[in-house]
Amino acid sequence: MGKYVVGVDVGGTTVKLGFFDTEGVFLDKWEIPTRVEEEGSHILPDVAESIKKKLEEKRILFEDVAGVGIGAPGPIDSNGVVYKAVNLGWNVFSIKEKLEEHLKLPVMAGNDANVAALGEMWKGGGLGSRNLVMVTLGTGVGGGIIVDGRILTGFTGAGGEIGHIHVEDQEAEVCGCGNKGCLEQYASATGITRLANRKLKESGMDSMLRNGKISARTVFDAVKAKDALAMEVAEEFGRYLGNGLAGVACVVNPEVIVIGGGVSNAGEILIDYIRPYYEKSVFHGSRSVKFSLATLGNDAGIYGAAKLVLDSRP
Amino acid sequence: MGKYVVGVDVGGTTVKLGFFDTEGVFLDKWEIPTRVEEEGSHILPDVAESIKKKLEEKRILFEDVAGVGIGAPGPIDSNGVVYKAVNLGWNVFSIKEKLEEHLKLPVMAGNDANVAALGEMWKGGGLGSRNLVMVTLGTGVGGGIIVDGRILTGFTGAGGEIGHIHVEDQEAEVCGCGNKGCLEQYASATGITRLANRKLKESGMDSMLRNGKISARTVFDAVKAKDALAMEVAEEFGRYLGNGLAGVACVVNPEVIVIGGGVSNAGEILIDYIRPYYEKSVFHGSRSVKFSLATLGNDAGIYGAAKLVLDSRP
Repeated sequence: MGKYVVGVDVGGTTVKLGFFDTEGVFLDKWEIPTRVEEEGSHILPDVAESIKKKLEEKRILFEDVAGVGIGAPGPIDSNGVVYKAVNLGWNVFSIKEKLEEHLKLPVMAGNDANVAALGEMWKGGGLGSRNLVMVTLGTGVGGGIIVDGRILTGFTGAGGEIGHIHVEDQEAEVCGCGNKGCLEQYASATGITRLANRKLKESGMDSMLRNGKISARTVFDAVKAKDALAMEVAEEFGRYLGNGLAGVACVVNPEVIVIGGGVSNAGEILIDYIRPYYEKSVFHGSRSVKFSLATLGNDAGIYGAAKLVLDSRP
Repeated sequence: MGKYVVGVDVGGTTVKLGFFDTEGVFLDKWEIPTRVEEEGSHILPDVAESIKKKLEEKRILFEDVAGVGIGAPGPIDSNGVVYKAVNLGWNVFSIKEKLEEHLKLPVMAGNDANVAALGEMWKGGGLGSRNLVMVTLGTGVGGGIIVDGRILTGFTGAGGEIGHIHVEDQEAEVCGCGNKGCLEQYASATGITRLANRKLKESGMDSMLRNGKISARTVFDAVKAKDALAMEVAEEFGRYLGNGLAGVACVVNPEVIVIGGGVSNAGEILIDYIRPYYEKSVFHGSRSVKFSLATLGNDAGIYGAAKLVLDSRP
């Protein structure tokens, strides 16, 4: 049995890698560029090469590594098979088998948002819980669900796609997924900006948002400055996300809901807008859920990927 | 290791009991009344007594019984602790421990809707699948979710409460759970009747529903007779349930969705009304889900309860 595990988080522009001991102590992290050209065929060989180099550099023997965990954007089933990852150019293949070929080490793979949720459960905002929902508010809305300490992967790796829950029948614009009225269209950074721009157009209200660039950040800065229009936007955001998360909680009855992603930098004020709507529409058995902010930031993926390996050991 | 398992399904008026061998072959079933008086304190002793009597009658030795599984209406966590079952008069206690005391046999307990879902996975409409959502359309809307072959119980046993997903902001009437706008208010037998009565009041349309009693059954009979008003009601039902199930599928990515309960006697036509809305609003990764009708009827609970025991064995 090895003494170390490696966690890998493949993103559209960089791959993050982290080194942990099998007690879960973080030892080192580094990054390499993601080469998406030629259907992303270089990505896994690059990852393997980089891990080998790091092992040499640290004078760590291969037999001392228990395994490598890897998260990537796309549906990935519990056997480590990815069903197309558009951002990486990947088609359908087994990430697990392919990386094991290159590394001759045990590999575990999962969807990046799911893996990040596992990381936050292990060492972040969900510490101590085994039933957790993580929602990542970034350019899109990602989700990861942990049930009894394990990722809810689903039949074809599309579990936890919280951002694409249908929450609005009256939407005219199309979501990235092709549907209309997805939660992502209102609760992502892009969604908040969209809500703000709509409100600025439709309302005659004065607002500090009328000067300068609109972003999720400027909206929540304005909310903190008690800007009335921005507060209405935050209320809309809270209604969509609070109701959406209430639906998720009716399904999985979590102990804690962790909010992460760039938008979560706004802080506890987010939860103040989400919680009232959540509590109003959730089933009473899930009303007393804890809300917390993610604490691992961009490292959640490498932590969760390492944990995938630790959990797979007998 | 025993040769037999017992499945018990506690309802508000009767307790159903079933006898199976450990290969899952159904052998016998019977019923006893549910005595809810005195905080339901007689229910588990009655169950134990009835099982003992049956064993004697069949000349089966106690050591030949691998265990007893039991489902009951209320949130029941993975340790077999119930958190109040209002219909039975039960407060908070361990069903597992209490029944083990009486029977001196291993006991597993779960929520009745979750256990029924397990039964349908094992021997019913979800046969062959390990990732399943079951929705039971009866007086209320119950739900059970199976992930990787196991019940999704949740943190406090409130997993799978599909009927209380918030689907309508504009509802004035209160759901049994205390909230407004729950899926149950539109997709249960009671909900369908409510939708039909509303439509009859608001619309000037002629309809065969204007003569006689309105029920989910008469509504779907009218739908089959191409009654235009009834078809509008079915469309509303399908929109609420299809969108609601799409949300559930975004979260758990099932292979199959099983529709059960009294309303499901209407047959495949239900699915014809649900599927278009489901497909329109679900995330593409879950679009190709199979819909099927439950096949075990009122026996799903005893099957699932027996399976709880079989799955708990090492």
